[in-house]
Amino acid sequence: MAPLDQLLEFLRIPSISTVPAHAADTARCAEWVADLARGFGFNVAVEPTPGHPIVTARGPVQAGRRTVLVYGHYDVQPVDPLALWTSPPFEPAVRDGCVFARGASDNKGQILAHLLAAGEVLRKEGDLPVNLIFLIEGEEEVGSTHFGPFLSAHRAELGCDVVVVSDSTMIAPGVPTVAYGLRGITGMELVVRGPDHDLHSGCFGGAVANPATVAARLVAALHDASGRIVVPGFHDRVRPLEAWEREAWRRVPYGDTELLANTGAPQLVAEPGFTPIECVWGRPTAEVNGIGGGYQGEGSKTVIPSEARVKLTFRLVPDQHPDEIAACVGRHFRALVPPSVSLEIRAGHGARPYLADPNSPFGTAARRALRSAFGREPVLIREGGSIPLATLMRDTLGVDTLLLGLALPDCNAHAPDESFPIANLEAGMRMHRELLRELATL
Amino acid sequence: MAPLDQLLEFLRIPSISTVPAHAADTARCAEWVADLARGFGFNVAVEPTPGHPIVTARGPVQAGRRTVLVYGHYDVQPVDPLALWTSPPFEPAVRDGCVFARGASDNKGQILAHLLAAGEVLRKEGDLPVNLIFLIEGEEEVGSTHFGPFLSAHRAELGCDVVVVSDSTMIAPGVPTVAYGLRGITGMELVVRGPDHDLHSGCFGGAVANPATVAARLVAALHDASGRIVVPGFHDRVRPLEAWEREAWRRVPYGDTELLANTGAPQLVAEPGFTPIECVWGRPTAEVNGIGGGYQGEGSKTVIPSEARVKLTFRLVPDQHPDEIAACVGRHFRALVPPSVSLEIRAGHGARPYLADPNSPFGTAARRALRSAFGREPVLIREGGSIPLATLMRDTLGVDTLLLGLALPDCNAHAPDESFPIANLEAGMRMHRELLRELATL
Repeated sequence: MAPLDQLLEFLRIPSISTVPAHAADTARCAEWVADLARGFGFNVAVEPTPGHPIVTARGPVQAGRRTVLVYGHYDVQPVDPLALWTSPPFEPAVRDGCVFARGASDNKGQILAHLLAAGEVLRKEGDLPVNLIFLIEGEEEVGSTHFGPFLSAHRAELGCDVVVVSDSTMIAPGVPTVAYGLRGITGMELVVRGPDHDLHSGCFGGAVANPATVAARLVAALHDASGRIVVPGFHDRVRPLEAWEREAWRRVPYGDTELLANTGAPQLVAEPGFTPIECVWGRPTAEVNGIGGGYQGEGSKTVIPSEARVKLTFRLVPDQHPDEIAACVGRHFRALVPPSVSLEIRAGHGARPYLADPNSPFGTAARRALRSAFGREPVLIREGGSIPLATLMRDTLGVDTLLLGLALPDCNAHAPDESFPIANLEAGMRMHRELLRELATL
Repeated sequence: MAPLDQLLEFLRIPSISTVPAHAADTARCAEWVADLARGFGFNVAVEPTPGHPIVTARGPVQAGRRTVLVYGHYDVQPVDPLALWTSPPFEPAVRDGCVFARGASDNKGQILAHLLAAGEVLRKEGDLPVNLIFLIEGEEEVGSTHFGPFLSAHRAELGCDVVVVSDSTMIAPGVPTVAYGLRGITGMELVVRGPDHDLHSGCFGGAVANPATVAARLVAALHDASGRIVVPGFHDRVRPLEAWEREAWRRVPYGDTELLANTGAPQLVAEPGFTPIECVWGRPTAEVNGIGGGYQGEGSKTVIPSEARVKLTFRLVPDQHPDEIAACVGRHFRALVPPSVSLEIRAGHGARPYLADPNSPFGTAARRALRSAFGREPVLIREGGSIPLATLMRDTLGVDTLLLGLALPDCNAHAPDESFPIANLEAGMRMHRELLRELATL
């Protein structure tokens, strides 16, 4: 069967991991992946978890050569709002050189490129240039709850030299992309409480601290007027950007114009001394994700609200640690909050930032493979988001992760009309073959 | 019929002005008031408006004596939540020396004290010490929409020397209270807009201004750390408190303890150099009534919100003007808002502050009347809230308003189990008689 037909078949299985009614479909999808890999000659196991199973597929093992672990996931996001899809999400359609279906880019198209490429080599040649392990889970879209424990429990059998993941984006069509860094994150919710009920702002205003005002003052105390974060200790572990990466980022065909177009904001901002893209990829942030207090309906209501809440997340860069930053920020707020209100700080989730060296032997091997596959020098980027997997792999298996995205920024991952370019399925297969060849030489 | 029985009958009419299903009841209530006044010998008219009618009742007119206008309202607030009432809101019940019913204190009990007192004198003596006009509207609880136009249209017939209103509170049981000042108000809503949709805080955080952060910075720029408002020009017209009133307020049996108990806040605040009660009665404020933006549900959502909104009201003191203050604040915000977001300022309603001289002939006459009626020296206060009526009367009729509250702070106006002390019905009648006698001597 041609690679495109394999992808269409994969995409017809509605493996929505978060929807209980699709549990059987999700299980069937795991079996589909397992059958495909078995057909190529891989040693396959469908490993049960308390949630959806994890599929492992291993090529022939030979001592003395590199072991490469390829991670992916077979589960997909829900499809609503269904009305916004041009064609049904589980009836894949080909338009303008792209396959449209839920999961097309996230992650079925990307992981299938690896599977098909390795499978073809294995079937034809009976072996692969490296010891290859596929690890394909079914809960990525629901927080990978059972993946970490599985990894820990099987760390010996999953020992490898490097992890390869294609579950991110290429910066532009035809521009091969290596993401060598990710921001971390730490979240918290502030609850500022004042009076025990909403008060009449006439009868009490002036004698009572307004919790919404206090909350606003705490938020305002995160930055100076230039936008730099002024929480004491916040920058202590921030690793300065290196000259080579700032230079590399300037050559990436994604900058102010693309950023601005994707936001619809009046204009971009940046910390003094940095470009906007440097701020997204290489600088920490303090963002209000949500703020609320008092009357938010139509018209007016002259109350002093009894409480106000702020949801904050801090994007972190190497070598900041989520717990340390949460502690810094907590101390800063507690020093500022007046005794006329109480402040509760609820801890949110945290993830450490990730940074690998794209000039390491694995990094340069990946770049050579991308150059061969796409016929163009790959760009080196970091991503502003947080992919806990890379840190998890480093912590559990002690190895770096190569993030080689094949989806495009307009592939609509998680959105209606998700798509994947057929060209990237083919280029992804070339990339995989070249990658194994390059890694084998190290 | 005894005064208490008259009050119970008045309270049985569910004159909820905002509920269309009670329109007939509200009209019947106007007629009840008119019939009562007619029975005493007043010259009565039920004046139609596009809303609920206004009842006027005039005593005998004699040239060369004072004319006194008594304002009140016969409409009441809605009753929900009904489940929280101990007895049905329109089946008045007497418990612990108080009448419990919707409208008991706001305003039926208070206006009836005036009506019954004047009516008794008129019926017995065929005349009153002054030319007396009752002006009793039916839309006070729905914004008095048609009252201002009525007043303007009839300003000649409503000409008077002073207005008397009992539609506020006595500061404590048995403590007669003259309110000689009211704060004004001006409101506005800020809409801070950044990106044209909520953004992924990982993919864009650092390159885009966060509208919630900007909104918080605007709010934080209203005050300094001590709580003093720092908007340029804001204090230009603030009249300093006078020594006599600060002294008078210290003698009022309502201070920090009562304020704190009524708020449930951890502690009170005050501008440097002022007591909390001075801040409520005599200093301007800038309050957030509501703030909102981004994700406010359970858990977290790592977005940069596309917009944030803040509802603000400023309580004003003499001689601040709502339009001037709105302009000051608008200029302050516009000077601070960065070009990376847009700021819309929506104007809210405004009302000027009010201040009368409690040592004027009318003020001292009122104080003598209260002393006679309650057997105790009245206290002089201002109120922190805004009663546009007083300013309206001064603007339209050119006279001061005596605010002689008969409700107690715990009378639950606008709330379940609204009540009115029977003692205050009787004392209010004594007050009215004494007041007419005192005003006649001026």
